[in-house]
Amino acid sequence: MPNLMSAVMKSKPAAGIEIREVPIPAVGLTDVLVKVKVASICGTDLHIYNWDPWAQGRITPPLIPGHEFCGYVEAIGDEVTNVKEGDFVSAEMHVACGKCLQCRTGQGHICQNVKIIGIDRNGAFADYVVIPESNIWKLDPAIPHEYASILDPLGNAFHTVLSGDVAAKNIAITGCGPIGLFAIAVARACGAAQVFAIEVNEYRRNIARQMKADFVLDPASEDVRAIIRDHTNGYGVDVLLEMAGHKDAVRLGFDILRTGGRVSLLGIPSRPMELDLARDIIFKGATVFGINGRRMFETWYQMTALLKAGKLELHPVISNRLPLSDFSKSMDLLNSGKASKILLYTDGVDSTF
Amino acid sequence: MPNLMSAVMKSKPAAGIEIREVPIPAVGLTDVLVKVKVASICGTDLHIYNWDPWAQGRITPPLIPGHEFCGYVEAIGDEVTNVKEGDFVSAEMHVACGKCLQCRTGQGHICQNVKIIGIDRNGAFADYVVIPESNIWKLDPAIPHEYASILDPLGNAFHTVLSGDVAAKNIAITGCGPIGLFAIAVARACGAAQVFAIEVNEYRRNIARQMKADFVLDPASEDVRAIIRDHTNGYGVDVLLEMAGHKDAVRLGFDILRTGGRVSLLGIPSRPMELDLARDIIFKGATVFGINGRRMFETWYQMTALLKAGKLELHPVISNRLPLSDFSKSMDLLNSGKASKILLYTDGVDSTF
Amino acid sequence: MPNLMSAVMKSKPAAGIEIREVPIPAVGLTDVLVKVKVASICGTDLHIYNWDPWAQGRITPPLIPGHEFCGYVEAIGDEVTNVKEGDFVSAEMHVACGKCLQCRTGQGHICQNVKIIGIDRNGAFADYVVIPESNIWKLDPAIPHEYASILDPLGNAFHTVLSGDVAAKNIAITGCGPIGLFAIAVARACGAAQVFAIEVNEYRRNIARQMKADFVLDPASEDVRAIIRDHTNGYGVDVLLEMAGHKDAVRLGFDILRTGGRVSLLGIPSRPMELDLARDIIFKGATVFGINGRRMFETWYQMTALLKAGKLELHPVISNRLPLSDFSKSMDLLNSGKASKILLYTDGVDSTF
Amino acid sequence: MPNLMSAVMKSKPAAGIEIREVPIPAVGLTDVLVKVKVASICGTDLHIYNWDPWAQGRITPPLIPGHEFCGYVEAIGDEVTNVKEGDFVSAEMHVACGKCLQCRTGQGHICQNVKIIGIDRNGAFADYVVIPESNIWKLDPAIPHEYASILDPLGNAFHTVLSGDVAAKNIAITGCGPIGLFAIAVARACGAAQVFAIEVNEYRRNIARQMKADFVLDPASEDVRAIIRDHTNGYGVDVLLEMAGHKDAVRLGFDILRTGGRVSLLGIPSRPMELDLARDIIFKGATVFGINGRRMFETWYQMTALLKAGKLELHPVISNRLPLSDFSKSMDLLNSGKASKILLYTDGVDSTF
Repeated sequence: MPNLMSAVMKSKPAAGIEIREVPIPAVGLTDVLVKVKVASICGTDLHIYNWDPWAQGRITPPLIPGHEFCGYVEAIGDEVTNVKEGDFVSAEMHVACGKCLQCRTGQGHICQNVKIIGIDRNGAFADYVVIPESNIWKLDPAIPHEYASILDPLGNAFHTVLSGDVAAKNIAITGCGPIGLFAIAVARACGAAQVFAIEVNEYRRNIARQMKADFVLDPASEDVRAIIRDHTNGYGVDVLLEMAGHKDAVRLGFDILRTGGRVSLLGIPSRPMELDLARDIIFKGATVFGINGRRMFETWYQMTALLKAGKLELHPVISNRLPLSDFSKSMDLLNSGKASKILLYTDGVDSTF
Repeated sequence: MPNLMSAVMKSKPAAGIEIREVPIPAVGLTDVLVKVKVASICGTDLHIYNWDPWAQGRITPPLIPGHEFCGYVEAIGDEVTNVKEGDFVSAEMHVACGKCLQCRTGQGHICQNVKIIGIDRNGAFADYVVIPESNIWKLDPAIPHEYASILDPLGNAFHTVLSGDVAAKNIAITGCGPIGLFAIAVARACGAAQVFAIEVNEYRRNIARQMKADFVLDPASEDVRAIIRDHTNGYGVDVLLEMAGHKDAVRLGFDILRTGGRVSLLGIPSRPMELDLARDIIFKGATVFGINGRRMFETWYQMTALLKAGKLELHPVISNRLPLSDFSKSMDLLNSGKASKILLYTDGVDSTF
Repeated sequence: MPNLMSAVMKSKPAAGIEIREVPIPAVGLTDVLVKVKVASICGTDLHIYNWDPWAQGRITPPLIPGHEFCGYVEAIGDEVTNVKEGDFVSAEMHVACGKCLQCRTGQGHICQNVKIIGIDRNGAFADYVVIPESNIWKLDPAIPHEYASILDPLGNAFHTVLSGDVAAKNIAITGCGPIGLFAIAVARACGAAQVFAIEVNEYRRNIARQMKADFVLDPASEDVRAIIRDHTNGYGVDVLLEMAGHKDAVRLGFDILRTGGRVSLLGIPSRPMELDLARDIIFKGATVFGINGRRMFETWYQMTALLKAGKLELHPVISNRLPLSDFSKSMDLLNSGKASKILLYTDGVDSTF
Repeated sequence: MPNLMSAVMKSKPAAGIEIREVPIPAVGLTDVLVKVKVASICGTDLHIYNWDPWAQGRITPPLIPGHEFCGYVEAIGDEVTNVKEGDFVSAEMHVACGKCLQCRTGQGHICQNVKIIGIDRNGAFADYVVIPESNIWKLDPAIPHEYASILDPLGNAFHTVLSGDVAAKNIAITGCGPIGLFAIAVARACGAAQVFAIEVNEYRRNIARQMKADFVLDPASEDVRAIIRDHTNGYGVDVLLEMAGHKDAVRLGFDILRTGGRVSLLGIPSRPMELDLARDIIFKGATVFGINGRRMFETWYQMTALLKAGKLELHPVISNRLPLSDFSKSMDLLNSGKASKILLYTDGVDSTF
C-alpha cells in the first residue's frame, strides 16, 4: 500500500476544488480503511463546490467531500470483528452518537449529535476513506459497482417511499432529481398501483419515463390537478412523496392529496413557505412525515434485499461515468442541468452493463 | 307529547338569534327523536350568532344550531332496532355518507360528503332533536348529564391526544379553550409523564391549573422554550397538541418539539401561515397529524370507558349552567372571554354535583 | 326477466346436490339483484357437498350455496343509491351487522353477528343472487370475468399478505391451495424479496412454479429448514403466511421464522394442536395475527387497484371452466385433488384469454 | 477501595449457594464498576439456587448471579464518556451484540447473540458489579433505591403493557407474580378502563388488591368468564397480558379475550401446550405478541418518566428487605410461596419509606 493517495480537496473557503496528493488516512482501533472503487455525486457536493451560503455556514476547509461510494476493504483496526480485508462494502455516512434519546430509541437517523463523513470530516472522493466499523455495510459481490455506490440516495428514496403503506396505493412524486427518480422504481417494486411523476425539467421527465412512471407530468404545461383527479376517481393520490423542496411543488402536492392521505417530505426548502394548515392538513386528516437520511439499518436491509432480488432497474438515472480526476467536469455537467447521477471511478471506468 | 317545542333559531342572515316556538320534527323510519336534557355551546355557535364571515359562507337560515347535547329517547322510527324509548343518549353529529372511500375504509370522521347536525340541518338547541339511529350513542345512566352533553368536544380531545402514543411522554398543549382543557385531563389519565399547558389568557390558565396540568405557562410573560428545555433534559416535548390555531402558538409549538416528536393539529387557523418545513418537520423527523372530529366510533368507546371508570374530572371546564332561554346571555358571556364551557338546560338547571 | 332460474340446491341434509328450477328471489328496498355471470368454487362448497361434520353443524337446507361470483345488476331496490342496472359487480358476502363493537371500530370483517351469503342464506350458484347494496362492489369493466369472480379468495390472500410489512421481506407461504397461490402473486407484486412456497402436493407445487415463487419446496422430500436458512443469511424468513391449517405446516412455519418475525394465520386447523409458546413466540419476539375474511373495504380497494394496474397474473390458479350445470363434476374434480380454482358459468363458458 | 468483596456464589453444579470473599472485578476500557446498593431477587435466581433442569442446562458455575440492582459508580474505564464516578445507576443486563439483524433494526431486546449479566457472566449479588457503559442506565437521585433496584422486572411489565394500546381498554392480567403485579400499576397509570387481575394464589391476590386492580379474581373459586362478560358488555377484554406461563391461565386468557383483541405473552410455559388456533386466534382476528426483556431503551425511558412523575406506587410488591448475607433465607421465603419481591442490601437495609 502506498503512503499517498489522490483526493478531491476543498482546500479553501471559496468556489472550486483541487485534486491533491495527500497521505492515506490512519486506521483507528474500530475503523475500516476502504479502497474506493466508485464514488457518486450528490447535490450537496455541488453546493460545496459552488460555495453557496449553505456551504459557507456548514463546511470547514480543508475537507475531502464525498458521501456516496463503494469499495473494497484494505485494512481494519484491531477491534474490528465483523469486517475483513477484501470485503466489498459501502457505508452509512451519518455517524450517530449512540447515546442520545433518539439513538437509544431506534431513531439514530435523526441523532442530535450526528457527524457526516464527507461533510464534517473527510469523505470518499479519494482513493481511500476511513469508516467506523459500525457504519460499514457489507455487500453481496453480485451487486454491481454502480448500484453499490448510490446506496446513500437510494436509501433516501427507500426511507421516503416506505415511511407508510405503498402497496396498491396511488403515489405522486413531486421532483425528479435522482432521489425522486429512484423513488419511482422503489414505489413500483413495492406494489404502487399508479405512480405520477411531476417535474418541470424536461431532461428529468425523460428519465422519469425510462423509470416507467405511469404518468410523467409537467406542471408548467399540463393541468396536473385535473389529470390526477381523473385517474383517481376524483379522490386524489393516497401518498405524496415531496422531493422538490420548492413551494410550488409543495402547494401542488397538497392540492392533489386525497382526504386522509400521507405526505412524506424529503425535499429541503431553502426558506419558509406559506401553508394553509386548515385546508391542507387538518380538515384533510392528513399525516405528514419529515424524512431525513436512512433508517439505520432497516433501510439498508431493504435496499440490499431488493437489489439482490433484481427488482430494481436504476440505470436510467446514471447519466455519466467519469474518472475521479474529472471532478470539475462533473460539476460543470450538473450546473448545466443536463446530468442526473454522475459516478466517479478511482481506477478506470467500468464498462460492464 | 306536545306539537310545538321551544328552539333557538337563526332565522335570518344577520347577527343574533331568536327563541321561537316551532313544530316538533317528524321521525323518519331510521330516526330517533330525543328530548334534549342539556345542550352545550361550542365556539362554532358563537360564530353563527355573531354571523362572522365563516358563518356567512356556511350557514343557510333558518337553522336551529347546537351539536353538543344529551337527552332521553322520546320516539323511534319503525326500522330502528338498537335504541328504545327512554334510553339516555348523546350523538355523533357528523353524519357520514357511508359510501365514499373514506367511509368504507374506517375513516368516516373525514367523510367527504359529511353533513353536520346543527350546522347543515337542525340541531340540539331545542326541546327535541332528530338523529339517525346510526349516529346515536347510548349512555350508561351513571354518567352525569353535564358530561353526557359535552362528548362532542371531549371527543375532539380524545381523538387528538390518542392519535399517537401518550403513555410516559412529555406533552405540550398550546391553547386552553375547552378542548385544550379536556386534553389535559385525557393526557393525564392516559399516562402522560408531564403536561405543559400553554395559554395567553389568564382566565383559561386558571382553569388549566384546576385541571392539574403539571406546568401552566404564559408565553407572553415566561420563557416557555427555556422552561420546557429545562424539564425535558434539553430535548423538548415528545408530543405537541395544537389547540389554538394561532400562528404564534404553532411557531412556539414546533420550537419546543423534540427531534422525532409528534404533532397533532386540531386548532383551526383562520388563514395560511409561514412554516419552516426544513427545520420544523424534515430535519426534525417529525410526524404531523391533522385531526378532525372524532373517530366513529373508537373515540366514543374510549370516552365512555374512561368516564364510566371515573378517571376524568372535567368540572372545572364547565363555567356556567343556564336555561336554554338564556341563550343570548351565554353568547355575551363567551364574547366577554370570561366563560369556558356553558351548559344550557331545557327544563331546569341541574344542581347536583 | 323470467320468473324462474336454475340453481344449485342443497335440498336435504345429506351428501350431494341438485340442480333445480326455483323462483328468482325478490328484491328488498336496499337490495340489488345480480344476474350471475361466473361463480367460482371454494373448499367450503366441497364441505357442503360432501356433508362433512362442519357442514352438518353449520348448514340448514334447503340452501343455494356459492359465495364467489361476478355478474351484472339486473334490478335494484327503491332505496339503492349508488348502484344501477347494468353495473358490473362482485360482492363481499360477509354481511356485517354494523352495530357491534367490532363493526363500529373498523373491524367489520370480524363482526360478531356476521351472516354469510351462500352459507347462512342463498348464494351465487344460480342465475341470480340478491345482495344488500352495502355489500356490492362495483368493478371496472376492464377487469376480466374470471378475476372478478374470485375476489373473495383473492381478498383472503391480500388481507393475509398485507396484514404487515411485505416490501423487501423474505416470505414463506405454507400451503398452496388457491389462496396460497394467490398470495404468491400478491407478495411478489408488493415487493417481497424472496417468496418460499411450501406444499406437499405435487400438482399444487407445479402451479406455484407458474406463479413464479422464488422457491417451491416439498417438505416431504427436501430439507426446508436448511434451504431457507441458506437463503436468509441463517436468520429465517421475516414473514410466515400460514395457509395450510395442518399441524405439520404450522410446526415447520414457526421453525423457519426468524426472531422478531411476523406470522399471519389464515389456514383453519380442524382441531387443536400443540405449540411451544416459549420457543415459537415468546423468546422469538414473534407477532401472530389471526386472519379472517377481507377487510371491509380496504382489501377490496387494494385488489381493484392492483388488478386494474395489471400487476397480478392469476391465470395459472384457474384450473377448470365449466357450465354451472356441471357442478357435480366440479366436485369430483376437487375430490380427486387434481383441480385448483374451478369457475362455473351460467350462460356459456368464456373462451377469451 | 478494597481488593476483595463479598459475593453470592454458585460455586458448583448443585443446589444451594455460598457467600464468598472474591476479588473485585477488573474494569475494562468501556466498562463501569458499580458499588451495588440494592439487588433484588428474580424467579430465575430461585431456579439457579434450586439447580432445576433449566439451570442445569444454562448455568456454568462458578457464577455470581443477580440481574436486578441499583448502585453508585465507583470507577470507569478510560473510554467511558457518559458516566462518571458517583452516578446513581441501574443497568440493562441483556448485553446485545449490536451486529445482528435484530440489533441493527431496533430489536436489540431479541438479539440472537445476547449475553445476560448474572446468567452468562458474573452479576449483581455482590458488593460490586462490572457493566459495559452501553448498558448503564443513569437515574435521577429522586428515585428511591427500592424502585431503582427493580427496573428489570418493572421493565418487563412496561414492555408487556405498552406493546399495544392500553388507554381506555379493559385489561386482564393472568398471573400475579411481581411482574403481573407491576403490570397492574402500569396499566392503571396508562389509562386502562378496568384491570382484571386473575391469580390462584391467595397471598398474591391480596397484593393485587393493594395494587388497586379493579377486580381480583380467583379462577379456582369464581366464574371468571362470566364475571368478565358481565363487566365488558358481553364482549370480553380488549387485552390479555399473560404472566403465568401455565396452560390453564393461557386457556382461560384466550376464552375471555374479545374478538379482535390483543394478547401479550410474557409468562414462559415450561412445556408445549394445546391451542385451538381456529377458535382462539384465527376466527377471533386476535393479535398475539411474544414479549421478551425490555426494549432498549424505550422501556427504560418510559419507566424513568413515570417513576419520576410519581405515577407508580409499587411498594405493596416489595415483601422483604434483607441484608445480602441472608440470601439463603430469601430463597426459603420464596420457596414457601409467602414472598413477592425481596430486596437484598449490601450495606444496611434502608428503612425510609
